[in-house]
Order: sequence, then structure tokens, then C-alpha cells
Amino acid sequence: MKIKMLAALALAAGNFVALAQTNQPADDWQPAPSNMPGQQYPQVNSEGRVRARLQAPQAQEVQLNISGVKFPMTKDTNGVWLGDSTPQDQGNHYYGLVVDGADVPDPNGAFIFGSGGWHTDVEIPAADQDFYALKNVPHGQLRELLYFGKTSNTTRRCYVYTPPDYDKKPGKRFPVLYLLHGYNENETGWGHQGRAGLIMDNLIAEGKAKPFIIVMENSAINLPPGFVPHGPPPAGGPPRGGRRGGFDFSPFEHALLEDVIPYIDANFRTLADQPHRALAGLSMGGMQTRTIAPAHLDTFSHIGIFSGGSIATNEIKDLNKFKQKVKVVFVSYGSRESGAAGKADVAALKAAGINSVFYESPDTAHEWLTWRRSLHEFAPLLFQKK
Amino acid sequence: MKIKMLAALALAAGNFVALAQTNQPADDWQPAPSNMPGQQYPQVNSEGRVRARLQAPQAQEVQLNISGVKFPMTKDTNGVWLGDSTPQDQGNHYYGLVVDGADVPDPNGAFIFGSGGWHTDVEIPAADQDFYALKNVPHGQLRELLYFGKTSNTTRRCYVYTPPDYDKKPGKRFPVLYLLHGYNENETGWGHQGRAGLIMDNLIAEGKAKPFIIVMENSAINLPPGFVPHGPPPAGGPPRGGRRGGFDFSPFEHALLEDVIPYIDANFRTLADQPHRALAGLSMGGMQTRTIAPAHLDTFSHIGIFSGGSIATNEIKDLNKFKQKVKVVFVSYGSRESGAAGKADVAALKAAGINSVFYESPDTAHEWLTWRRSLHEFAPLLFQKK
Repeated sequence: MKIKMLAALALAAGNFVALAQTNQPADDWQPAPSNMPGQQYPQVNSEGRVRARLQAPQAQEVQLNISGVKFPMTKDTNGVWLGDSTPQDQGNHYYGLVVDGADVPDPNGAFIFGSGGWHTDVEIPAADQDFYALKNVPHGQLRELLYFGKTSNTTRRCYVYTPPDYDKKPGKRFPVLYLLHGYNENETGWGHQGRAGLIMDNLIAEGKAKPFIIVMENSAINLPPGFVPHGPPPAGGPPRGGRRGGFDFSPFEHALLEDVIPYIDANFRTLADQPHRALAGLSMGGMQTRTIAPAHLDTFSHIGIFSGGSIATNEIKDLNKFKQKVKVVFVSYGSRESGAAGKADVAALKAAGINSVFYESPDTAHEWLTWRRSLHEFAPLLFQKK
Repeated sequence: MKIKMLAALALAAGNFVALAQTNQPADDWQPAPSNMPGQQYPQVNSEGRVRARLQAPQAQEVQLNISGVKFPMTKDTNGVWLGDSTPQDQGNHYYGLVVDGADVPDPNGAFIFGSGGWHTDVEIPAADQDFYALKNVPHGQLRELLYFGKTSNTTRRCYVYTPPDYDKKPGKRFPVLYLLHGYNENETGWGHQGRAGLIMDNLIAEGKAKPFIIVMENSAINLPPGFVPHGPPPAGGPPRGGRRGGFDFSPFEHALLEDVIPYIDANFRTLADQPHRALAGLSMGGMQTRTIAPAHLDTFSHIGIFSGGSIATNEIKDLNKFKQKVKVVFVSYGSRESGAAGKADVAALKAAGINSVFYESPDTAHEWLTWRRSLHEFAPLLFQKK
């Protein structure tokens, strides 16, 4: 009995030591790959911890803040604060510092737009980062366009990825993927933290995806004041999709169909027909996709929904038309999201004879590595018609 | 006598009041035009003052920091700090906040790359801002390119402005301006805070400039470790320009002539000859221009030097060749810089029969409004050969 208790105590003590050891960060810190060249901080280690640094001699308290979770930092005798986070998911994270109660960006950080504004960003190398690595392969171009949209009555800004061949083959026309960002993001997200261009460059170089154009527009639901849709009423009456989950997507739906697509078809060498046009998006962009695409089956043939719900068979008004028009429905989630309903919906779509794919990103949540991987899985499925 | 003294005192008092009044900011604050839509701070007023805001209840001292000059901010009962700068030059300014001694970006600010890193940026509307305003005119594209440069042995990133006509007229070829950034800046500067695209769109729409391509490369003097120029030794021996003012520009000179220009000529519809190729730059980019262009008169015909020195006639090795090859030398400064030597050099170049222009930007220093205006003055002079 006594021996058993001692053994239990020893075991408990052993566990405690092990726990303490895992709380001791691995000492293999490297500057984050998102840093500017030569910038030593923030750093990341092999466990996915983030280490921040700030020179703040007079501050009383400094914390590292990753998506609202705050980690203490401590001051050395030179007034320099250092602090580590717990292990984070691989991929990129918005973060900042809290200096005596003030939420501020890290002066050492690089900046991306997302989560409602400009934020400092730290990238934790992913085990599979090779698929979006910068390689010595032919690269496409990422083009910033400005153009006046009559329907949205404003100058719109949009980014267009043209594949490496685009300027080399002036006689060739290309299919188009319209790729939407999430809530509180904008048209810069996919081309920058989404790594859309590098993902496509690598897939095309390996012969794994057809070259196509990607259009990354601003699909924010709050269009400028005075927005008046000028398009004709849709054939078949008003319900064009429109609302979902409390959001009203109809202003963007008008802009996409009446401003964006006509502008792209008039200014790029597109294959301007339904078989060569895809719609996909992440989070709110996925909700927009599953709202807009099924309501416009004469416009879109390929549908991608990343962390943004799915399409239930009982939501489809005309199953025969859907089967005939839709070449693929792709639904994805991070494994740390609730993707069960999406998986079940995809199984039901398959059972109904619709080409559908479910993808789960390992060990990720509602974050950009989920969506980089989703694009990487989705792109090879596009425009594969024999 | 008494009356005179009283009058003098009254006058002095009046002056004092007037002075106090000018220290009282004009109460016409507006969100800065550089803010994200809907973002109320930072604000600017008609005097060019900047007002910053920070929620920092526990901070002891917060300051507004514009290029190293610090302005006190004061805390209200809700823990919100507000503070105003003195009047600033029109145009954009890098700025930040100091929270209990820590230099941090303003969480309300928009971000630009310059002054050695990412900084928050505030734009004070300029009286002449119409020339770089976003208008409903045909817009060119700003393209981000990635390509492997053999000479620099690295993947290079470059931005290319293509004029509105570029994709509309697939049979047409265009002249090219290579436009260089300053020290501690990078290839994003001209396309973003330099407003190069909008300046050109507006000039072209008004018929004031010929449409041409602009190439904005990274001309940083610190090339990656292991840099080995692979180009053949230049005809006529080693002195190709190379050094100036303590900087060694020869690695970039090799990259420009052996990587950048050949890539652009191979991948864009350029007029790939000396009469249709210009080189210009700001600050260090101006120093690079006046070093590299005169050493390569068979490559460049138009020279623009913005706040970066000038070309003295006695520096020109072969005046006859220079006169024959160079169509324009443009030199500019802000009125708050020391441009006298540049002005004298331009007068001497003119006297020597070389088409030269000096431009002084009113009420600006070594800053982006000087360089936006310089591009606006320089562009109409380019490629005007009958």
C-alpha cells in the first residue's frame, strides 16, 4: 500500500516534471519567414511558438496578443521586453502587442489586411509549405486594376492573377476563377497571405492544374452609401439568392454579375462562358458562393466553398439542372472547425450524382493555412472537361 | 510718447494674441484621406496638423511621433489619448506613437513601406492633389512580377505599370521608363505612396503624356549574400559608373542592365531601343540614375533626377556624344531642399546645348509630394521625339 502510494506520487511528480519540460520552449528560435529580410523578430520555434521583442524601458506591462489571447512578456535590464506564446497552428496569424493597456501593432512586424484592418502578421512554417513556396518556376502576374463599376456606382479595385503563359500566348483564351475573401478582409487577401499566385505557379509548373485566370474582387457586404443596382430584374423574378445568415449579398451579387464579370471578359482573354467560369470563396466568401452560384447556373460551372458551409441537396431547386450544369462542388474545412455537416452534404450530393469533393485540412482552424490548402486541392479539379 | 508706448504695447499684445490664436488649431478636422474607409483617426485639419488618438487607459505618457519630432498627447477620463502636431507639409508623412517610451505604429493607421520598414502613414491633402486623384478615366494596370535574375542570382520582384491602352492594342509597342526608389525604400514605393499609376492615368487621359510602361524594381544597394555579377566585362574597360557618394551601385547596375531590362524587353511589348528608354529615380535612385545613365548612353536617352543631385558639365566625358544621345536631363528638388547646385548645373547643361529642365516643388522638402510632382513634370517630357 505504502509502496503503491509512493509509486503514484513518483508518477505524479514525473508527470509534473514532464509538463514543466513541455512548457520550456525548444531553443531553436528563428526569425519568422514573414519578417522583412534581416529582421530578427518576431521569432518562431519548432513547436510553433512565437517570440516577440519590444524596446520599452518605461512601460509597466507588455503582452504578446495573438487573436485576443495574451501572453506575458518580461523586461530585461536594458528595457527590452521578450515574451513567448504557447504553440500555435502552422500558417499565418494576426498578432499585436499590448503596451500598458494599449493594443498596438508590433513595430517589428510585417503588415497584412485582414480581421477588420491592417495587422501585424507572423507566419509559422508549415510542414507542407513547399506547395506555396517561392520557386524558380515560371510565375504568373498579379495585376491591380482600377475601373468604374456602373452597377456599384464606384471605382472598384480588383486583383487579377494571370498565369505564366498569358502574355506569351496572345492567341490563347483562359478560363476564370472568381475567388472571394472573407468577412473583414478585402481584395488583397488571396494574393498576399493566401499565396494564390505561388500556389498556382507551382501547380501549373508541375502540370497538376490547367492555367486559368483568378479574379480577386472586393466582396464586402457594405457597399458605399448611395449604392443603386442598375441591372435589369432577373429573369424568373426577384429571388436570385440574395440573403444568407443575416447577410444581404444582393449588392455584391449585382456587382459581380453586372460590373466585375463583364469588365473581366471585356479586358482579358477569357473563355467567356459558363463551362469556363468558377466561383469560390472562404468563410463569408464561401457563403456568397453557395448563395450566388446555384442561383446563376448559366454563369458558373465550378463551385468551391472553403470554411463557409456547403450545399444541401434539399436546398437545390432543380436537381436535374444542377447535375447538368455543375461540374464540381468542392467543400472544405479545417479539422478544428465543425465540418461534419459539410461532409454529410457532400456525401448526399455524391449520392444524388453530383461530382462533389470534401476536403479536411489537418490540424488547422478557421485560418489561412486551411484556405491555402483548399485552393491547392480545388484548383486541380477545375476546367478538366475532356 | 506715452501714447506711442501704449500703441506699441497694444501692438505687441495683439501680436501675442495672434500668435496664441495660430497655436490654437483650426477646428475643421477630417479623417486623413490615407485612412481606411470609415476610420475616423488620424485626422488632419486645414493647417496641415495631424491629430492622433489612442485608447490606453494605463499608459503614463503617449506622444505622436512624426519623423522623430514628438508631440504630447493628453488623456481624457475614458483613457483615450488625443494629441495634435504642428502644421506639416502637404503630402504624406511616416508617423507613429510613443507609448511609455515604446515606439510603435498607430493601430489606426494605414501602412506603407519606406524609411527602412513598414510604417503608419498619414496623408495631408495637397492644394494640387487633383493631379494624382483617382478619377473616372481609363486606368493602367500595376503588375507584380516575380522572375529569376541570373546576374543577381535571386528571384526578383518588380512592379510594372502598363498604360490603359496596353491590352487594348495588342499590336502596339511602348517606350519604357525605369523608375527607381530611394534609400531604405523598395519596389512598392512608386506604385503606392508615389501614386505613379494615377499620375500617369490622369496625364494620359488629358493628352499631356505619351503612354509608356514604367518599371519599378528593387534597387537596394545591399544585394543578397553570394551576389556574383555574371555579365561580361563592359566594352571599354571597367569604369561603368559604379560608385557615388560612398555607395557602390555596380551590383544594381549589373542587375538593371543584365537582368531587369532583358526580362522586360522579352516579356512586354516594349520599344527596345535607346530612344525609347528612360531612367529616373528619387534620392538614392537619382544618384543611381546620374551614375548609371551617363555610363550607358547607348541604353538610355532620357534622364530624371529627383532630389538626388544633378549632372555637372565637367563630369561628362564626351560632351558631343552626350548631346547627341540624351534627349532630356530633368533635375528637381523640393523648395525646402538645397537645389541651388542642381539649378546651376541645369543652366550650364542648357548653355552647353543639352535639353535640360530644372523644377522646384513649392513648399516641400525631401518627401513624396516633391517626387509625385517631379514625375508629373517629367513624364510629359518623355518620348516626344517628332
